[in-house]
Amino acid sequence: MNPLPPNTFSSLDADELTDESKVVIDFIANYYKSIEKYPVQSQVKPGYLSSRLPNAAPSSSESLEDILKDVTDSIIPGLTHWQSPNFFAYFQANASTAGFLGEMLCSGLNVVGFNWIASPAATELESIVMDWMGQMLNLPSSFLFSGGGGGVLHTSTCESLICTLVAARDRVLRKIGSDKIVKLVVYASDQTHCSLFKGTKLVGIPPSNFRSIRTSFSTGFSLSPQALEDAIQKDVAAGLVPLFLCATIGTTGCGAVDPVKELGQIARKYSLWYHIDAAYAGSACICPEFRHYMDGVELADSLTMNPHKWFLTNMDCCCLWVQEPSSLIQSLASDAEYLTNKASESNAVVDYKDWQIALSRRFKALKLWIVIRRHGLANLMCHIRADVNLAKRFESLVTKDNRFEVVVPRRFALVCFRLKPYNKSCDGLKLNRDLLAAVNQSGRAFMTHGVIGGVYVIRCAIGSTLTQEHHVDDLWKLIQQKARLILANGK
Amino acid sequence: MNPLPPNTFSSLDADELTDESKVVIDFIANYYKSIEKYPVQSQVKPGYLSSRLPNAAPSSSESLEDILKDVTDSIIPGLTHWQSPNFFAYFQANASTAGFLGEMLCSGLNVVGFNWIASPAATELESIVMDWMGQMLNLPSSFLFSGGGGGVLHTSTCESLICTLVAARDRVLRKIGSDKIVKLVVYASDQTHCSLFKGTKLVGIPPSNFRSIRTSFSTGFSLSPQALEDAIQKDVAAGLVPLFLCATIGTTGCGAVDPVKELGQIARKYSLWYHIDAAYAGSACICPEFRHYMDGVELADSLTMNPHKWFLTNMDCCCLWVQEPSSLIQSLASDAEYLTNKASESNAVVDYKDWQIALSRRFKALKLWIVIRRHGLANLMCHIRADVNLAKRFESLVTKDNRFEVVVPRRFALVCFRLKPYNKSCDGLKLNRDLLAAVNQSGRAFMTHGVIGGVYVIRCAIGSTLTQEHHVDDLWKLIQQKARLILANGK
Repeated sequence: MNPLPPNTFSSLDADELTDESKVVIDFIANYYKSIEKYPVQSQVKPGYLSSRLPNAAPSSSESLEDILKDVTDSIIPGLTHWQSPNFFAYFQANASTAGFLGEMLCSGLNVVGFNWIASPAATELESIVMDWMGQMLNLPSSFLFSGGGGGVLHTSTCESLICTLVAARDRVLRKIGSDKIVKLVVYASDQTHCSLFKGTKLVGIPPSNFRSIRTSFSTGFSLSPQALEDAIQKDVAAGLVPLFLCATIGTTGCGAVDPVKELGQIARKYSLWYHIDAAYAGSACICPEFRHYMDGVELADSLTMNPHKWFLTNMDCCCLWVQEPSSLIQSLASDAEYLTNKASESNAVVDYKDWQIALSRRFKALKLWIVIRRHGLANLMCHIRADVNLAKRFESLVTKDNRFEVVVPRRFALVCFRLKPYNKSCDGLKLNRDLLAAVNQSGRAFMTHGVIGGVYVIRCAIGSTLTQEHHVDDLWKLIQQKARLILANGK
Repeated sequence: MNPLPPNTFSSLDADELTDESKVVIDFIANYYKSIEKYPVQSQVKPGYLSSRLPNAAPSSSESLEDILKDVTDSIIPGLTHWQSPNFFAYFQANASTAGFLGEMLCSGLNVVGFNWIASPAATELESIVMDWMGQMLNLPSSFLFSGGGGGVLHTSTCESLICTLVAARDRVLRKIGSDKIVKLVVYASDQTHCSLFKGTKLVGIPPSNFRSIRTSFSTGFSLSPQALEDAIQKDVAAGLVPLFLCATIGTTGCGAVDPVKELGQIARKYSLWYHIDAAYAGSACICPEFRHYMDGVELADSLTMNPHKWFLTNMDCCCLWVQEPSSLIQSLASDAEYLTNKASESNAVVDYKDWQIALSRRFKALKLWIVIRRHGLANLMCHIRADVNLAKRFESLVTKDNRFEVVVPRRFALVCFRLKPYNKSCDGLKLNRDLLAAVNQSGRAFMTHGVIGGVYVIRCAIGSTLTQEHHVDDLWKLIQQKARLILANGK
C-alpha cells in the first residue's frame, strides 16, 4: 500500500491552537476595551463589504494576522455593537466572561449529544442545569426532572414555540383526526412576539386561525381574560377548535405582563395548551420581588426564558420547561437504526434529539452551568437589580423633564418614552422618529422604537453588561441635546 | 437620587476575560493532547452525574479553578470523545483550530444579526461566504447571490428541511387552498435521513403522506427514478398532490448517492420542489473527482451541506442555498414594528431572519470564513482526499481478510462492513453486534452500526481531524483481535 501524501496543513494542532487562540483572546479583550470608540449602530451603507473582500475563496492558506486585520478594517466597521455600554436597542444580548468561557469549552470539546450515549455528560448536565434554573425561578416541581417534568436548551424562543405548538397540535389531532388541522386556533395578545405567528404558520395552522387579541393602555397592554374567553367562545360556536394560548411575561414592545393565573384558568377550562413566554423578563423572576409575575405558572404546560437576553449568557441559549415531556417526545422523536442503543431502549435516559427540532446539538449546558456557578445566585440577582435600578434612574430623568413623557409604566429595565407633541399640529410620530434618528446617527448610543396603542415610542432597553450609571446619564444628556435642536427647528 | 449599590462581581472585565480565557485555552489544548487516553465512548452509567453535582445552584461565586476541576473529574468521564482520532461513529463532527477561533470571535463579538441593520457585517459576510462556498462546489450561478439566488447558514439540516418544506407547501397551498394541506405528499428513498420525515410532520403534512421508497443492493441503495415516478402517478391518481422530493448525496446509512439529474427531471415534470441533501458528502464535492455526483443540481430548488460534519467547522454550521429566495421569504418573513427600518424597506439588503426559523441568530459566517481562509481551497481538498485515502486503506484491509466483507461499495470515507456468518446457523446480526460491542467496550475506538438491505453492518466513518494512518491500522488490528475471540467462542 502506498503511503499517504503528507499533510501540508495542520488543522488541529494543540500547540498552534494555544498560540492562535491567545492572539484571538487578546484581540477580543482589546475589542472590549475600545468598544466605546465605535459608533454603536454601524454606519455603513448596504453592500459596503463586497468591495472590500475578494469575490472567491483563496486557494492557499492565509495567515491569522491577515484575517484579523480584515476583521479590524472591514468587519468591525460593519458591526452594530451589541456589547457596547451604549447599546439600548431591541433587548440586550448580554455577554459575560463566564458565558464566553462556557462557549469556548463547548466549542473545544465539540461533542454532539443528540442522544444520551453520544455524550452522557452533555445530556445529564443539561438536565441538572435545567432543574437548577427551574428552582431559581421557583417553578413547581412538576416542571423539573426531579418532579416528573423537565427542561431542554433550545436555540431560540421560536424553536420552543414550534416544538410546543406541534406537541399541542398532535395531542388534539390524535383525537379528532389530522384533517382537522385547519380548524385549530391559537390565541395571544397583540403584544405577543411575532415568533408565535410565524411558528403557527410553520406548523401548518392557517394564518387566519391566529387570534391576536387587542390590548390597550387601560390594562397596561396585558391580555384581558374576558376578551380571551369571548374569542374562544366565538371560535367554538363557529366550529373551530381552540388549541394553544401564549401568555407573555415582559413583552417586547413595552414589557407588559399578561395575567398568568387568570389566563391559565381559562386555558384549563377549554383544554388549551398553555405556554408562557418569559423570554425577556424570566431572568428577573429569580428575584423575589419579580417572582409574583409567575404566579399561576402551575397551570401552564410549558414555559420559556432566554438566558441569552438578560442572564449573562452568550448567544444562543433558550430554556424550555414542560410538565409532560411525553407530549413533546411523541411529536418530536426521530427513529433511525443508526441511533438505536441499549441506553435509549432502557428508557433510563433522556435523548434530547426528541425534545427539539434538529438531531444535532451543541453542549450549551456547559455555558449556562458556568454562568450560574461563576456568578452564583446572589450576584445574578444583583445583576438584574442593577439594571432595573438604572432603568428607574432613566425613567426618573425622563419624568422630570416636562417636554417628555413615559408612555407605558416601566416594569423591568425597559423604558418606553417620547417627546410630547408641543402643539396640536405637531406630529408625535415624526418628532420622535427624528429624535431617535438623531440619537442613533450620532453613533453615541443606539435605541429602537415601537408603536404601543397607536403611539410611536422610543424604547430604552437597559441591560448591556458594560452599561454603568454614567452611560445612562450620558444617554439622557444626548437625548436632551438632540431634542433641543429638533424642537428649535420645529417650532 | 441615591447612588447605586456597587457591583460585587465583574461579569465582563477585559483583563479578567483575558486571564481566564487563557486558562481555558490551556485546558482545551491539554484535552486535545491527552484525548487518546480516554475511552472513546463514555463508559458511565445512566444517572452518573447527579451524584457528583449539587442539586441546586450555588448562591455565591465559585472559582474557575473549581469549575475546571469538576469538568476534569465529572464531565470528561461522561463525554464520548468526538474529537478523538479513534472516533469512527455516526458521521464525524470535525473541529479545527480555525473553526475554534471563528467560534471564539463569534461568541466574543456576540452580535445578533437578525436583520441587516442589527449588524450589517454579519449579514454581508454571510452572503459573501455563501457565494464563495457555492463557487467551491461549482454550483450554477442561479444559487448564488451574484446570480439571483442565495444562501444562508442554518443550525442543522432539519432546520433547512423545515424552511424549504414550508416554502414548497405554501407555494402550492396559495394556489389550491390551505385546507388541502392533508393532500400534500413528500418523496424520498428509504435511505433518506430521518430528519425529512420529522420535518414533514412538523410542518403539518400527515405522516401517512410521506413516501419512503424502497431501495436495494441492485441500485447501490440509490433512489430509482422509475420507482419515484410510479409512486407519484399512483398518488396523483388517488387525488393527492405531489409536493416535495429530497435526493441525497451521501446517505447516512451507507453513503449512497441518488441520481440527481434523473430525479430532477421527474421533479420538474410533476412540479415538485426538489431538494438535495448533501449534508455529509457535499464537502467532498469541492474536489473535481467527486463533483460529478452533483450533476443535475441546476434542476434543484434547494441544496444543503453541513460544514460541521466534514469541513473542519466546529458545531454548528449548515449551508442552505436556494434558487428563489422569494419563496423562502414569503413563508418565513416576520413582521414587527420594532424591526422596521429604512434599510429593510429599501429592499437593498438581506434580512436573514426571513430565511430561517428563529429571529435571533449568531454570527456563524465568521467561523466558516476563517475556516476557508485559514486553510485555502487546496488544503481543504487535501483534507477530504486524506480522509478518503484512509477509508480506502481500511476498505482494502477488510477486503484482504476473507472472514470479513465490505457490504456496500465505498464512495466517500464511510466503510460498511461485517464479519461474514461462518456457517448457515450463524446469526450475522448477533455476530456483528457482539463484535461492535467488544470494540466499543474496549474504549480504544468507537463505531456505530446500520441495517442496510436487511443486513446488519458496522459503519466505520473516517474523518475525525486527528485521525492518522496508524489509528486506522490500530482500529483494524483491534477489530481482528476481537473477531478472533468472538469466532473462537462461537464455533
